[in-house]
Amino acid sequence: MTSSNGDMRGAGAVLDTLANGGVEVCFANPGTSEMHLVAEMTARPSMRDVLCLFEGVATGAADGYGRMAGRPASALLHLGPGLGNGLANLHNARRASTAMVALVGDHATYLKDADPPLNSDIELLAAPMSAWVRRTTRAADAGRDTAEAILAARAGSAAGTGGVATLILPSDVCWSEGARPAGVPATAPERADADAVERAAKILRDDTRCLLFIGGANLRPDGLRAAARIARATGARLLAEKSPARHRREPGLPDIERLPYPLEEASARLDGHRHIVFAGARPPVPFFGYPGRPSRLFADDCELHLLGMAPAALQDLADLVAPAGIGASRPRPPAGGLPAGELTAAKAAAVIGALLPEEAVVVDEAISSSADLVAATAGAPAHDWLCLTGGSIGMGMPAAVGAAVACPDRPVLTLQADGSAMYTPQALWTQAREGLNVVTVILANASYAILADELARVEGVPGADLGRTRGISDISGLDFVALAAGMGVPGSRARSAGDLADQLRRALAEPGPWLIEAVLPSSARAGGGVRGA
Amino acid sequence: MTSSNGDMRGAGAVLDTLANGGVEVCFANPGTSEMHLVAEMTARPSMRDVLCLFEGVATGAADGYGRMAGRPASALLHLGPGLGNGLANLHNARRASTAMVALVGDHATYLKDADPPLNSDIELLAAPMSAWVRRTTRAADAGRDTAEAILAARAGSAAGTGGVATLILPSDVCWSEGARPAGVPATAPERADADAVERAAKILRDDTRCLLFIGGANLRPDGLRAAARIARATGARLLAEKSPARHRREPGLPDIERLPYPLEEASARLDGHRHIVFAGARPPVPFFGYPGRPSRLFADDCELHLLGMAPAALQDLADLVAPAGIGASRPRPPAGGLPAGELTAAKAAAVIGALLPEEAVVVDEAISSSADLVAATAGAPAHDWLCLTGGSIGMGMPAAVGAAVACPDRPVLTLQADGSAMYTPQALWTQAREGLNVVTVILANASYAILADELARVEGVPGADLGRTRGISDISGLDFVALAAGMGVPGSRARSAGDLADQLRRALAEPGPWLIEAVLPSSARAGGGVRGA
Repeated sequence: MTSSNGDMRGAGAVLDTLANGGVEVCFANPGTSEMHLVAEMTARPSMRDVLCLFEGVATGAADGYGRMAGRPASALLHLGPGLGNGLANLHNARRASTAMVALVGDHATYLKDADPPLNSDIELLAAPMSAWVRRTTRAADAGRDTAEAILAARAGSAAGTGGVATLILPSDVCWSEGARPAGVPATAPERADADAVERAAKILRDDTRCLLFIGGANLRPDGLRAAARIARATGARLLAEKSPARHRREPGLPDIERLPYPLEEASARLDGHRHIVFAGARPPVPFFGYPGRPSRLFADDCELHLLGMAPAALQDLADLVAPAGIGASRPRPPAGGLPAGELTAAKAAAVIGALLPEEAVVVDEAISSSADLVAATAGAPAHDWLCLTGGSIGMGMPAAVGAAVACPDRPVLTLQADGSAMYTPQALWTQAREGLNVVTVILANASYAILADELARVEGVPGADLGRTRGISDISGLDFVALAAGMGVPGSRARSAGDLADQLRRALAEPGPWLIEAVLPSSARAGGGVRGA
Repeated sequence: MTSSNGDMRGAGAVLDTLANGGVEVCFANPGTSEMHLVAEMTARPSMRDVLCLFEGVATGAADGYGRMAGRPASALLHLGPGLGNGLANLHNARRASTAMVALVGDHATYLKDADPPLNSDIELLAAPMSAWVRRTTRAADAGRDTAEAILAARAGSAAGTGGVATLILPSDVCWSEGARPAGVPATAPERADADAVERAAKILRDDTRCLLFIGGANLRPDGLRAAARIARATGARLLAEKSPARHRREPGLPDIERLPYPLEEASARLDGHRHIVFAGARPPVPFFGYPGRPSRLFADDCELHLLGMAPAALQDLADLVAPAGIGASRPRPPAGGLPAGELTAAKAAAVIGALLPEEAVVVDEAISSSADLVAATAGAPAHDWLCLTGGSIGMGMPAAVGAAVACPDRPVLTLQADGSAMYTPQALWTQAREGLNVVTVILANASYAILADELARVEGVPGADLGRTRGISDISGLDFVALAAGMGVPGSRARSAGDLADQLRRALAEPGPWLIEAVLPSSARAGGGVRGA
């Protein structure tokens, strides 16, 4: 509420400052303590509120939005338990370095010490997944704190250190007068480390046993072209990080292979190089440890060189070692014809590769089916590919919500394993409510296939009951078409490759969301992934 | 694996120690880092593993189990994000003082510092919702640490300070040899503070303007009878805490009214007393703050006396002030006849009150419909009533899983608001997989009714768009019968009071889970609750 002296309530200053900083969307799951923020939000056309029925949907949507929009969304969460529900997807956003402002409502300052039933220590909960955490303690600081949250989100995003800024807003700070919105200055792009670029250039020129390992913002057109120029000029080999936040793929752009998930394959790909130059990525680490297996992916005599996260570094490096410029890479041949017969993971991938529409946004939480899908879409029309950056499952359908809000004119395709789909199925309701153009393909093998694989490797447990062991990876009994119907999303079930092709064509042609349950053999086990499959 | 010298792997020692401590069930949502625990678990008939498809189901089930079994369950969670997903129901368990051992797998000790993708600071995440947190750093400590976790869980439970003990188990600690199981001594019941009991007795004898406020374990038969004896002997009035973990109700037991949720009603009930004696409960605090409203529920001249959490204190007090003993209270009249016509919250409550089966376990997450339901079941056959202790929604259907596992011979009835049902709907899958006798009644008013009420109280926001304000509490478009079918639980929809009665009778008569969507007017707004409705 604007008073005669120009002051307003804390909640109003938060929202006006968000508008000043280009934050135009709020993925919200509010409660009583956030009511003043909600009321002020409804008074402002500058802010689009998107209701989510679970906090993990809100944070995953903010992640997907940030990756595609290139500017932060906000998520609105209710107290410590609400933040808790949102943490898994904040973890992925942090690993994706997505800029995001997480607004967490809290009890009124004067009530907090009395420890009401919903009270908890929000700072502790927020710290592990946040680049920046602050509690606003009086309305007069609401504008300044919001501005600093936006700047912190952008800075962490640019530095590749994670861009989740968590602002804790007590309810009385929001309803009290005396606040003013703050301006939010533009953030300058991060500069390259010239010395590191020089050193890398010398190494690439002097030694042909070099690998250029790229990630982050370098997986967009400029970075991909620069990497290809460097490789051609110096003979360096190229590799990309395993799970990029956003990977642009289009005919004419180099399609750089990504580090595989299985430990042995990853080591093999990194082996045989004297130097590895990292640009927009850090040296990869094994996803998990295993008894008697190495904890390091690199040979002992391999030297690692870090160029930093700034995209400018890779551009500068390309200008140093390949100043003449080199033409575009040859487009890959288009995908083959459509397969037929009973559906398998490989056939599902082939169908998707053949039908992927121009300028699709692909959200990949296919886990054990992912490698097939990446391969099958290599020659597809231009698209962006969003990965499960942090390995915390339940990202797929929420991130698709955010991507569709950010890019209303582009088709969004979620490639979703069945096990991980069950962490945040509520995202489907928001897809229906907002009429988002999202097609979800559930790759349903009725098991935590990864767990079955991992359990098979556990040796020497006397009396281990293989039946019970299988039981813990058996998730049969799910009907995703019914589940989607329960949340207002129409759907269909594909048992053959022909079914999938027909249903995918129809789903992509119609506006609004659709879900296809692609029924795979329940023994299907491909490599690569984390938990669900 | 047991070696020739009697040592075993860390995972084996954890499981054998759990067995020594009477922990017989594990509600599990494991990942790769927990595979040795899972493999060892399958080798032991002493441990029942119950697979959950989301961590909030696992922690909520462990809460429900602990409340009904009177001994701890374990929950098995995967790394920081998995713990994050389980925090909301750990919050409720903490507020219920439920004894529980939360086992959180972590990366191998030698890999942790390299910060693999799924890495995060688990201690920080665990601390706010845990009474006790420890990381086991070598296999030799696994037995001891597990024993101490069980003792800490029991101690926090007995002291009413929360009984969630979180044990962080790196994967190499679990797979390494050199561990031995530890014994777990019995825990002595907490003793009463004799001085506090004497003082309370004197106050109750000297002043008739006393209120005896009971909670925790005193809401079982012994405590309820002791409270009634004290009231009859001294003239004290009686009141119970708002949301008990477990409230026993049966004909012949005094049915003590509970503190109402709305701030004004709660203050009114506590007003007019010179002294309040708290037994098994702490002085209540307003659930939320509101502009210009008081933050304290008591009059300034009211003296508060804390007897502590030990049930023995209330028994001792009764023996002091009412040594002769007093007979059972008169049973309430049985509920009235069955209503007919279009369903309302009040009619749904009447149907449930009339049909509640003997020895039911009622899990109440009905939020805005809860007060009606409590009133309508006052004269019902003997039952236990489990409340949303921490206000963190998403407890209902998971807690019902745990209660049904703990009490396989008793019918479990979940009274579930629709908004809060959407936080942990995955619990239905476990109900189907385990064939649990749980009947879920969704009280579906298609809105966050509490939020609509709260928003209506927010005044003075110029330009606030009432349409958008309503939008954020409108959750229409859900079909819970389809949702249940998607997870293998059969269901039906009740539009009239007669439908509900017919369907409830049939559901209670059949084995296995069933879900009834009770369609209420979408404008239905009763008092009492937190967020969903």
